Order: sequence, then C-alpha cells, then structure tokens
Amino acid sequence: MERRSYTVVGVGAVGGYYGARLAAAGHPVRWVARSDAEHLRRHGLVVTSPSGDLHLDGLEVAGPDDPVPEADVVILATKVHDNDALAQRLAPAVAPGSIVIALQNGLDVERPLAEALPERQVLGAMSFICARKVGPGRVEHLDYEKVTVGEFRPDGLASGVTNAVAEVVGDLSAAGVPSEALEDLLVGRWSKLAWNIPFNGLSVVLDATTREMVTDPACRSLAQSMMEEVIAASVAVGHPVAADLAETMLRSTEKMTSYAPSMKLDFDAGRPLELAAIYEVPLQAAALAEAPMPVAEALWRQLAFLDARNR
Amino acid sequence: MERRSYTVVGVGAVGGYYGARLAAAGHPVRWVARSDAEHLRRHGLVVTSPSGDLHLDGLEVAGPDDPVPEADVVILATKVHDNDALAQRLAPAVAPGSIVIALQNGLDVERPLAEALPERQVLGAMSFICARKVGPGRVEHLDYEKVTVGEFRPDGLASGVTNAVAEVVGDLSAAGVPSEALEDLLVGRWSKLAWNIPFNGLSVVLDATTREMVTDPACRSLAQSMMEEVIAASVAVGHPVAADLAETMLRSTEKMTSYAPSMKLDFDAGRPLELAAIYEVPLQAAALAEAPMPVAEALWRQLAFLDARNR
Repeated sequence: MERRSYTVVGVGAVGGYYGARLAAAGHPVRWVARSDAEHLRRHGLVVTSPSGDLHLDGLEVAGPDDPVPEADVVILATKVHDNDALAQRLAPAVAPGSIVIALQNGLDVERPLAEALPERQVLGAMSFICARKVGPGRVEHLDYEKVTVGEFRPDGLASGVTNAVAEVVGDLSAAGVPSEALEDLLVGRWSKLAWNIPFNGLSVVLDATTREMVTDPACRSLAQSMMEEVIAASVAVGHPVAADLAETMLRSTEKMTSYAPSMKLDFDAGRPLELAAIYEVPLQAAALAEAPMPVAEALWRQLAFLDARNR
Repeated sequence: MERRSYTVVGVGAVGGYYGARLAAAGHPVRWVARSDAEHLRRHGLVVTSPSGDLHLDGLEVAGPDDPVPEADVVILATKVHDNDALAQRLAPAVAPGSIVIALQNGLDVERPLAEALPERQVLGAMSFICARKVGPGRVEHLDYEKVTVGEFRPDGLASGVTNAVAEVVGDLSAAGVPSEALEDLLVGRWSKLAWNIPFNGLSVVLDATTREMVTDPACRSLAQSMMEEVIAASVAVGHPVAADLAETMLRSTEKMTSYAPSMKLDFDAGRPLELAAIYEVPLQAAALAEAPMPVAEALWRQLAFLDARNR
C-alpha cells in the first residue's frame, strides 16, 4: 500500500520537525513556506534531534504565491493568526474525504477550516515539544515530541477516535513520534492550554525560561494557580482534563531542558503574539461557563500591553 | 510661640521634599541620612518644584552611626524594610508625648514604632507626590504633593482626628503642602494601596511609566481590576475607601506627568522592593477578611520572582 502523502504548511520548528519525521519514514511530503521557500529548495531541511538528526534534500516547496500542493493529509503548522485566509487557500489542496490538521496552539482554531472546507476531516493536533527554528531550513529539537490528535466537531462534542485520527496517529507513531489519539479533541486543547496559558505568557512578561519559572517558588505557584483555573474551566465547559494535570505538567516542566516557549521567541522577534487563540477565546469560553480565570485574564492584559508596544 | 521642631529620617525624594518645605516655613529641621550625610552637610539640599524651588544650606545632618536628633516630631521617610531596627534607634529622639510619623508606603508599617515607642503619638502619613531623588541632596518634584495623616491605633480602630494629627497637618498646610487629617488612618492606608498595588507593581513588570499604563486600554483595565479588589478588601476589613476611588485615581493618573513609581526606581537601581508592606501584609489582611485579591496576588508573585532575580 502506498503511504499517505502529506503537505506541511509552515516550515517552522513544529512543521519542520514532524514533516521531516514523516518524510524520513517514507511518506511523500510537500512543503509550503514563505520567506524560506527558495532556501529550502536549494539546501533542504536540517533537523538536529536527540531522537536522531535528519537532513532532507530535494524538497518540493511551494512559495507564498503558489498553489498549495494536494495531499491525503494537509498539516497546518503556521502561527494561528490567519486561519481564515489560509482555509480558503487550502481548499484546492484538500479533496473531499481528505484530512486537514490544525497543528497549532489555542482553542477553536479548527473552526475556520471546518467552515471553509466542508466534507473534509478536520483534526486538531497539539505538540508537546521543545524545538526552535534556528535559521532558514534549520530546526533544533531539544526535548519532548509527543503529539495528541483529535477530530474537530463544530458542535463541540467528543468525536471518539475516528478513522482519520487513527490513521494520522498511526503514521506519526510509525515515524517514531510518540502520538496519542484523543476521544475528545477539546480535552486535548484544554490540556495544552493548561501549560500554554501560564508558561507562554509568563516567559514574555518575566523574560524568563521554563527552568527559571518552575524552580522559583513564587513563579511556580503563580503558574499553578493559572493551571488550576484552566482545569476548573475545562470541567465547567464539559471537557474535563486530568485532575492531577497541574502536578504532572509542573513535574515534566521541571525535567524539561530550560527552554524559551514559542510566545517568547515571537516576542523577541517582534512578531505578533498568539493572544486570541491562547487567551481570548479560552477566557471567553470560561466566562460563558461561569468559571472565570482572573489570573489568566490579568496575564492576558499584560501581554496585550506588551504586544501593542512591541510592534 | 516657637515652631515645632522636626527630624526627618531618610533624605530621599519624600523626606527631602516635605522636610525642605517645613524648613522653608521656619521650622527647625534636622536630618538623618546614610551615604549622603556628608554631601548634605557641605552642599545642602536642593529641591526643584513647580511649587517653588528651594535651596537649604547649613543643614544639621546625622549620619548612620550618629544618634537621631531629638525633635517634637520625627518623620520616618525611609524605605519600609527595617522599621523594627529603626524604631529602636528612634527611641532616644522621641520623648514621651512627642510625635513620630511613618511617612511610608504599605500597611501596618506603624506597628513596630508603636511597640518600640510607648507613650508617643504614632502617626501614619501617605504622600501623593511625583518626585524623585536625582542625586545626593537633589530632589526633583514633578507633580502633586498632597499628604494625608492619621493616628495609628494598635487595635485598628479609627482614632478620629487627634491633636497630634491636627498639629502636623497644620504645620504642613502652613508650609504650603496640601494636607488632610484622617479620621481613620486605615482608610488612608487602603486608599493609597489602591494606587500603589497596581501601578507600583505593573511599572516594574511591564517596564512602563504611569502614562503608558493608564492610556493603554488593557493595562488600564488591569489596574482598575486591582483597584476594585483593594476597594472590596477595604470594605471587608472595615475601613471602606471611597466607592468611586478607582475612577478618581485613574483620572488623576491620566493627568499626572508621566512618571516612574518608586518601586520602578528601586528595581532599576537593584534595591529590594517594598513587597511585604505593599503586597504581603494587605494580601493577608484581605484573605483573613475573606476578600481575596487574586489579581494583586498574581502581580505580587511576579514581583517576588523579579525581585529575587534582580539582587
């Protein structure tokens, strides 16, 4: 049987890493890049990783004005700012019955894809990875790499593990990426938020690495209070995450290599922060469910101030 | 009648400014300084101010190892970190029946004075002033200068306007300083906290001036939410501040010259922050009264992280 083909849109740390793993496992992988397209065509993609280095050459790379190459599975691994526009652009590349995955941070980021791409399988995926793009076509993977994948339902209900989810998780696992199929995508989304909401934001506001934050008692306690807010919100919205998630995440953050989360990298590079998807949408959902998150909201307002000044 | 004599302990922006106004009005004023003592003796004290510049020469200045000069009124205008030790040092300078004033930020800062100095009138005072020390013996007054003064009672009850309070307010007013006698010191303390808790802390965390903070919608809203927490706490502890205090303070902060609050100046100079008096004691009092201040508490934890890293 021929292996499923993939198109990876966005060749940053996340898209670059997982796309390279799939390509190394024998999947036909095509790429969509912006400023790095020509560099990737000429020099390929280099991944350094404790799970094994990779150097891929002869990449098929579409630029920002090219059509998106068609594939069985399209992985959207860009920043989450323009999913509406991207969804339009993806339409010719994802045939009905094919799969499109939002491998992105935040909540409800799949909705624009589902609306613009009817009859496709729309999945959401979350990566728990310490990785960064260190230059055009160069990804440095530091630690962790697990991916969770679930199917999006516009009504917000749990989909169970669908065929599409099982197929993608199967491909990732066979490519050596620890992967988990989610019965309920939103449980996965809220779980990821429990880490992103404290650590992404605090890394920017406090100019701090994960190691600094998790070892300082005041900062750790602050992160934990936000995690508890997110956990309570996940219960209130009907997608309860593991009750001991805060403790688990704090411990794994302790063991993690010291790391600047993606929002910190965005901030330092003067790029816009993913505030809507990571803060605003979850805060609204929590408020609607009468589980307000005042500490997370305070952090969001600080970030909104810093983001506005940073650009 | 001879004018009341004053000893001003701490010749920073606040002690320097008000001490200079009292001296210019004819009060005998003596000074206690640390590193600037010799400079003050030689070159005097220069205050630039929209209310009129002052240049005082021939100052009597005690150094850190000298006895504190005795006076009818001793004004403690140091940072609030070592009131316990200072109280011991003040004992010989404040005769029974005399007045000692904690012209400092925070809550319950008068208690160590009251405990170490029985039979004295222990007052608390709050200054609403934009001023900074720009060098040894040089104070730049920018905007505002009002002082509120109330008498401390160990049981926390309102003292009414005592004779001691009326005398000090009379002296300040006669010296041209807008001053107000407080019926209830703690109402004054909580009112000041309603400004200090948001703006001191946020200026450090966000590296921002008052103007930047109050004009940015996200930051203003964040400051307001902390003000509302403080107002609710003041009600819960039985010392309710004006219900419209948040709006009043935001408006006066808008009109204020753009300004780095004292905690920001401390942070930039690598000095310890006044976290106990401005955050920890009020947070404990609010929690005891079952009026928790989660947003203020989050800010305090951020500051604790930054303060620890800063030293």
